[in-house]
Amino acid sequence: MLYPEIDVVGFTHDMESVSAFGRTADGGVCREAATAEDGAARDWLRDRFRQEGLDLLVDPVGSMFGICRLGPADSPLVLTGSHLDSQPTGGRYDGAYGVVAGLHALLAVRQAVQGHAVSCNIGVANWTNEEGSRFAPSTMGSGVVAGVVPLEVALAARDGNGVMLAAALEQIGYAGTGAAPSNVKAYVEAHIEQGPVLEREGCKIGVVDGNWGTAKFIVELTGRAAHTGPTPMAERRDALLAAAKLVVAVRQESDLTEGRLLSSVGRLEVYPNSSNVIAETVRVFVEFRDVDQQRLDRACGNLLSATAFLGQNGISARTQQTTDRKVADFDPSLRTLIEHVAHDKGLACMRLRTIAGHDAVSMAQRLPSAMVFVPSVGGVSHNAAEFTATEDLVAGANVLAGVLARLVSS
Amino acid sequence: MLYPEIDVVGFTHDMESVSAFGRTADGGVCREAATAEDGAARDWLRDRFRQEGLDLLVDPVGSMFGICRLGPADSPLVLTGSHLDSQPTGGRYDGAYGVVAGLHALLAVRQAVQGHAVSCNIGVANWTNEEGSRFAPSTMGSGVVAGVVPLEVALAARDGNGVMLAAALEQIGYAGTGAAPSNVKAYVEAHIEQGPVLEREGCKIGVVDGNWGTAKFIVELTGRAAHTGPTPMAERRDALLAAAKLVVAVRQESDLTEGRLLSSVGRLEVYPNSSNVIAETVRVFVEFRDVDQQRLDRACGNLLSATAFLGQNGISARTQQTTDRKVADFDPSLRTLIEHVAHDKGLACMRLRTIAGHDAVSMAQRLPSAMVFVPSVGGVSHNAAEFTATEDLVAGANVLAGVLARLVSS
Repeated sequence: MLYPEIDVVGFTHDMESVSAFGRTADGGVCREAATAEDGAARDWLRDRFRQEGLDLLVDPVGSMFGICRLGPADSPLVLTGSHLDSQPTGGRYDGAYGVVAGLHALLAVRQAVQGHAVSCNIGVANWTNEEGSRFAPSTMGSGVVAGVVPLEVALAARDGNGVMLAAALEQIGYAGTGAAPSNVKAYVEAHIEQGPVLEREGCKIGVVDGNWGTAKFIVELTGRAAHTGPTPMAERRDALLAAAKLVVAVRQESDLTEGRLLSSVGRLEVYPNSSNVIAETVRVFVEFRDVDQQRLDRACGNLLSATAFLGQNGISARTQQTTDRKVADFDPSLRTLIEHVAHDKGLACMRLRTIAGHDAVSMAQRLPSAMVFVPSVGGVSHNAAEFTATEDLVAGANVLAGVLARLVSS
Repeated sequence: MLYPEIDVVGFTHDMESVSAFGRTADGGVCREAATAEDGAARDWLRDRFRQEGLDLLVDPVGSMFGICRLGPADSPLVLTGSHLDSQPTGGRYDGAYGVVAGLHALLAVRQAVQGHAVSCNIGVANWTNEEGSRFAPSTMGSGVVAGVVPLEVALAARDGNGVMLAAALEQIGYAGTGAAPSNVKAYVEAHIEQGPVLEREGCKIGVVDGNWGTAKFIVELTGRAAHTGPTPMAERRDALLAAAKLVVAVRQESDLTEGRLLSSVGRLEVYPNSSNVIAETVRVFVEFRDVDQQRLDRACGNLLSATAFLGQNGISARTQQTTDRKVADFDPSLRTLIEHVAHDKGLACMRLRTIAGHDAVSMAQRLPSAMVFVPSVGGVSHNAAEFTATEDLVAGANVLAGVLARLVSS
């Protein structure tokens, strides 16, 4: 069988269409999970599924599946997909690319196998809340299907305004009642790299060997609200000062490894956050990532020491770990298959590991999974300036189509 | 003339009544300027003015005045008052005490001078937005009357949701059209100390000599939004890390003076504030207070050096000074008068300076002004645990009444 090729005009048009939902003035998108903007993008995808004759399934956490029957109903399912939700300062490609590329790869495979007997069905997923910016944890929809996140925990997650995910999904019409597909044979996801490696190495395709380890924490520091004026310095219990020291300490943890361990604090919740009141409570969102699990574990231990040190002299500290993603590998035979297809197509490719979390990282905990990366210009992501050339997007989608074609036929 | 005495039962009842507006579960109040809760407290005060036969006047920035004519309409006005707005974590006394004590002192003076010819009228003010937590700057209503804050700047101030003060006042029905009284002879304000000095020294009355200097700044640090995962550490432009270093530096500025200079950061605005995105912009609300103007000026200079240092390597820093209140003295003869009345009443009193800003500090820039302080238990303020014994509140209100009685007669 020759490799199928996607419809480039249709693919480009769909990428343009989906970029309109939540578009920001600077050309990026703000389409956080289960917002009205996410709802509009979902409606668009639902309509595209219908136009293409796919069966729509929405599971209880709102993940959408477009299923195409190539064989009997109970045949194993080959699944692709990604997510349409974005960060508040999101770009056009993170997530949306894998959904649109997945849809077009599916359509190309369907056309290529017409008249042939195949042993699998094929589907494309739009996972709910991959980003985790509005509701924690991230990769939530895939986490539920993988059995990593309990459904009731996911639905009870609240955003910064106290809105529950269950209510937000109801609001946009995606509180589904279907069961997610249970007979998935393999999951393969296309995504932009979100880092500078492929571009730097002159490669068009990244075969993702596995994921870095990631540990995320919420450290809650509590002092005492008081007037910033007459309260003597010695009597202040300043939760924001403690939080600032923690932010600096988290950075130092990376500096100690000469930047090999990645560390960051991207979010602070300050209460009451009035310029005239010494902060009573600050929630600090800490994360560490490393390809070396031992070094990552050491950083986590040091964080607990640092918070114990800050939790003195009238400040109390409470630390909760929200993510504990160990260093892990994707399925070896899927990796070999992706590499094989890229080679056949004459595309320069390389192995690398993903530092970011992805739905495929969740799915890998339950079933054979893998990822195809395409280059990100300048490695820029979670930013309106995120960019990948159409040629590279198409190359990645065609590799994905080739891989899916082999999987449905084998 | 004997000194007038306030109606203790009526005063206590009014303190209870006003504490109900914006009451929080922990017994404090959240009654930020021009919110619905502030509106309800204002309506209550308007009704109290009517019940007592005072003329109500609301100026364009929403400050309320209850005026009692003791002499001809164009007689000079002796004014007292304070503010009914509170911090988000406010106590029951900060501001409300000075309004209720002012009202009852006025009523006591009116009764005491019945049948006597006096040369002045008397009034009580509820100044708009003393706190400055929802709209900046603080002491706004009194600042407008004192000519320190332009009216158009005040009305155009926006809260964190972008709502303008003008619209918020319209919403609660306090976008006034009257002119604030222009013939004020003297302004005397009663307030809780919000510090530990009177309690520690065993004094019931504080005669406020003047104010500490206060300098407030907003430092805006801008880096670049990027994924907290794959972005190499060396390429990160982390505005929140820079902000954390600034918070620590601001504290060190106080430590260098062994806590004599007061410094704090109570508020941070982080954008986009997503745990997965390196912060692009952080606005840091810095303040310094000192009784020594030179030491204060030196701290301000050091802040500019610190922000210049942080504004490197891909971070830009922009500093705007929002308050520049110099060390200043209250009117000497008013101070002597307060002390005299307290002595006559056998109340232990002492001189001290206010560290916090107050409406009287604004008013002092335009006309003879002074303040009467009563003790704050533990010095706690901007906190639900704020407390002053009723006996002390009444003593302060009676001193105020005595001072006002002398002023209207002289």
